[in-house]
Amino acid sequence: MTGETLGTLAARVGASVVGNPDRQIRDIRTLTEAGPEDLAVYHNRRYLSDARESRAGALLVKDPTPFPGRDLMVSGDPYLALAVLLEVFHPPRRPSPGVHPSAVLATSARLGVDVSVGPFVVMGENVIVGDRAVLGPGCVLGDGVCVGEETVLHPRVVIEAGCRVGARCILHAGVVVGSDGYGFATSGGIHCKIPQVGAVVIEDDVELGANVCVDRGSLGETRIGRGTKVDNLVQIAHNVRIGEHCLLVAQAGISGSTELGHHVVMAGQSGVVGHVRLGDRTVVTGKAGAVGDTEPGSMISGFPGRPHAEWLRAVGNLFKLEALRRRVSDLEKRLREMGE
Amino acid sequence: MTGETLGTLAARVGASVVGNPDRQIRDIRTLTEAGPEDLAVYHNRRYLSDARESRAGALLVKDPTPFPGRDLMVSGDPYLALAVLLEVFHPPRRPSPGVHPSAVLATSARLGVDVSVGPFVVMGENVIVGDRAVLGPGCVLGDGVCVGEETVLHPRVVIEAGCRVGARCILHAGVVVGSDGYGFATSGGIHCKIPQVGAVVIEDDVELGANVCVDRGSLGETRIGRGTKVDNLVQIAHNVRIGEHCLLVAQAGISGSTELGHHVVMAGQSGVVGHVRLGDRTVVTGKAGAVGDTEPGSMISGFPGRPHAEWLRAVGNLFKLEALRRRVSDLEKRLREMGE
Amino acid sequence: MTGETLGTLAARVGASVVGNPDRQIRDIRTLTEAGPEDLAVYHNRRYLSDARESRAGALLVKDPTPFPGRDLMVSGDPYLALAVLLEVFHPPRRPSPGVHPSAVLATSARLGVDVSVGPFVVMGENVIVGDRAVLGPGCVLGDGVCVGEETVLHPRVVIEAGCRVGARCILHAGVVVGSDGYGFATSGGIHCKIPQVGAVVIEDDVELGANVCVDRGSLGETRIGRGTKVDNLVQIAHNVRIGEHCLLVAQAGISGSTELGHHVVMAGQSGVVGHVRLGDRTVVTGKAGAVGDTEPGSMISGFPGRPHAEWLRAVGNLFKLEALRRRVSDLEKRLREMGE
Repeated sequence: MTGETLGTLAARVGASVVGNPDRQIRDIRTLTEAGPEDLAVYHNRRYLSDARESRAGALLVKDPTPFPGRDLMVSGDPYLALAVLLEVFHPPRRPSPGVHPSAVLATSARLGVDVSVGPFVVMGENVIVGDRAVLGPGCVLGDGVCVGEETVLHPRVVIEAGCRVGARCILHAGVVVGSDGYGFATSGGIHCKIPQVGAVVIEDDVELGANVCVDRGSLGETRIGRGTKVDNLVQIAHNVRIGEHCLLVAQAGISGSTELGHHVVMAGQSGVVGHVRLGDRTVVTGKAGAVGDTEPGSMISGFPGRPHAEWLRAVGNLFKLEALRRRVSDLEKRLREMGE
Repeated sequence: MTGETLGTLAARVGASVVGNPDRQIRDIRTLTEAGPEDLAVYHNRRYLSDARESRAGALLVKDPTPFPGRDLMVSGDPYLALAVLLEVFHPPRRPSPGVHPSAVLATSARLGVDVSVGPFVVMGENVIVGDRAVLGPGCVLGDGVCVGEETVLHPRVVIEAGCRVGARCILHAGVVVGSDGYGFATSGGIHCKIPQVGAVVIEDDVELGANVCVDRGSLGETRIGRGTKVDNLVQIAHNVRIGEHCLLVAQAGISGSTELGHHVVMAGQSGVVGHVRLGDRTVVTGKAGAVGDTEPGSMISGFPGRPHAEWLRAVGNLFKLEALRRRVSDLEKRLREMGE
Repeated sequence: MTGETLGTLAARVGASVVGNPDRQIRDIRTLTEAGPEDLAVYHNRRYLSDARESRAGALLVKDPTPFPGRDLMVSGDPYLALAVLLEVFHPPRRPSPGVHPSAVLATSARLGVDVSVGPFVVMGENVIVGDRAVLGPGCVLGDGVCVGEETVLHPRVVIEAGCRVGARCILHAGVVVGSDGYGFATSGGIHCKIPQVGAVVIEDDVELGANVCVDRGSLGETRIGRGTKVDNLVQIAHNVRIGEHCLLVAQAGISGSTELGHHVVMAGQSGVVGHVRLGDRTVVTGKAGAVGDTEPGSMISGFPGRPHAEWLRAVGNLFKLEALRRRVSDLEKRLREMGE
């Protein structure tokens, strides 16, 4: 990549140019790191002063007003434009196709065209891998696992027997798919394991962050819907069903048999109990714990989870309790005085 | 498995049959997925309508009353019966015994009979592995590690030097046993590492979920008692001592040198501070954080952890604060009027 | 190690001896496990009775007063002395230098002197490893990774392409450095991945616990400052900048683009939102969640995070609400009586 003009780049993402469209752009960098040959994006008001002071040759912005006299690429959705432009300057590097000689594959494994299998990969019987998929070093695929086309497994991903991963998924290092669900029948104080004989189905275009755990169904399946994106260290228990296009932020946890509609957001370190349903577009805010079904579009905060506005009011009142106590003391004193 | 009759299956678990004992059962499936040749279990009232509408050939239930006219297997503990019956239809598949040629074992390693060692396993000096144990692909056992008989290590489990795992344990993928405890002596603003020279002892019949971490003792040992079951992504710090038959649910965390009695339950995302003792049968509820010793049978909620009933009352009151404030305002107004 | 005298050991750490300096010490053990030939450390008042009853030949203490008649090593900082003395009795065991024949290294990899590369290690192109570094079994280093001298990677650490780890670092098993940050531009309900093209820089003397995740910068870098110590299962998001000598305890989480000053402490299961700055020496207490910038030296508790003293008062008041409600009811009753 030797650079393109601001105008050419803008055309790629349907953006307009303010200033000089012939300015050469050689990379995209952060507001503070960018120099005269770089484009930098401004999409969060916290960084307005950084943007104003940036040495970037051009800024990618939504609104040109705060930046008179600068070369600008103006887009209705700068963050989306950034996603496209980053691929121009940083095309994804896929390893060369082929199976590393150290990999251990059962003869029954069926690989699509241009699959890349890294060193020390292990595949059990009857594994199917789609075209152009990438299996990084040390990945382990149990018997009967299917991996869809163009899916990328980073190093050391484990997919246990019988689980299926769709197309164009990205599983980061250390992900475990298909570990046993946590199910025990307790009798006489002894926890007797319920065999976990279901599986995991991950639909297309899902991303799982580093060290995420997805348990297999006890009976039946655990399912993650198309387009859902999961951050690092998230726990997804057995028989959970997650709808399409959900966002599960780092360290969130979803208990067994709970169902999430589509476009549900679970913020960082949030949780939800088992056997409930979060309606479409529900948001469980940071550190909150949902304890029951929710209506579509709900926002749940605190623990036990309550509607966000109610929780905000309660927390606000909590920090005014000192004042309330003083008012009650005052009332008591005045009543005493009136009584005397 | 070509199927058994309902009566034969019931006899295996000491259950009785209502309806046709000669009905052929070919599998166990969920209430919603089961068909006429399947048995389905009903053990949670949330799913009563699913059970009533289920197409299952027979239901495994505790109480036959809600299901007149259906073929039933009636058991005092359906969930326990399920554990046994699932093994009938889904017998556990152990890999064939033998050491994969790619495994790297020190010559001092001693393996019992019928041990299975998968590809890319690494064992240090003086490792001992009991009869019929299974070491999945990519497991790493440091010097002096002992693994008991019939224990199963899923792929990529790491057991660091000197740690011992008992018999019939199950360690899921990505488990780390024996990482250094988190101990530093801070001097002049520099955190100086305290060498962690203890070990981890995991007793018999313990299960550790995916990506669980158990730190070695600083001095002396970290110990997990017999029959304790640990869910995914749980943190167990150095010198923790966990009693027998405890349940540690996903993402729980136990700080250093804390002791748990037997049958303690730590629910999802709960925690406990260091250097305390949770008495036998203590329950720390979801997201709670215990901050001191507890009596046997305690139930602790919230943070800082309080007795559950007290916490419930406090949370209830918190959400009634708005009303209380109005009552105080009203009193103030009436007093003002009386003063006038 | 066949033992040293109490006096010789004391001299190594600048401590003084009370009692017999010629007493032979053969190991350091815990207060409850130590015998007549062992030294045991007493540094936490919780364990005073254990110390008094200890069978240890000698005690390492700060204050000799509670232990008349015993052989003592008296140090201004017993815990720091312990760190030094443990290395005497338990010198760290490094594996022999050399590259295991099973390792897969690109020919462009450059290894320093006396590097140890374990079985099944994988290195991409242009990797640089400093002198005396140790790469445990199954580690994966992507293209262009640098690892500093004397750094130890425990088994199965993954460092993705372009990330740099300083000198004398310790990365425990299962650590992932350089996974993609969690960044998406949502358009028409579809989450479009923002390519994560930055890297991770880990400075010297950093320790990362088991299964820790550190995401690469979206643009620019994620950085962990010199001397910072990170416990197990911590999440560090993209573009986070952590200062020097911070302590991040188990299961803490730091959201994207947040900056920590030096000597910041995040206690267990705590969190902080994105795009804020925690001032130097800020402490976020257990389970708390900081939601804004903090002044140097702040202590933040609860969620949403508040100054610790304010939070303590609020929680105290919360548990006195029952009493306050009774006082208000009483006032209402008295006013009613006065009105009659």
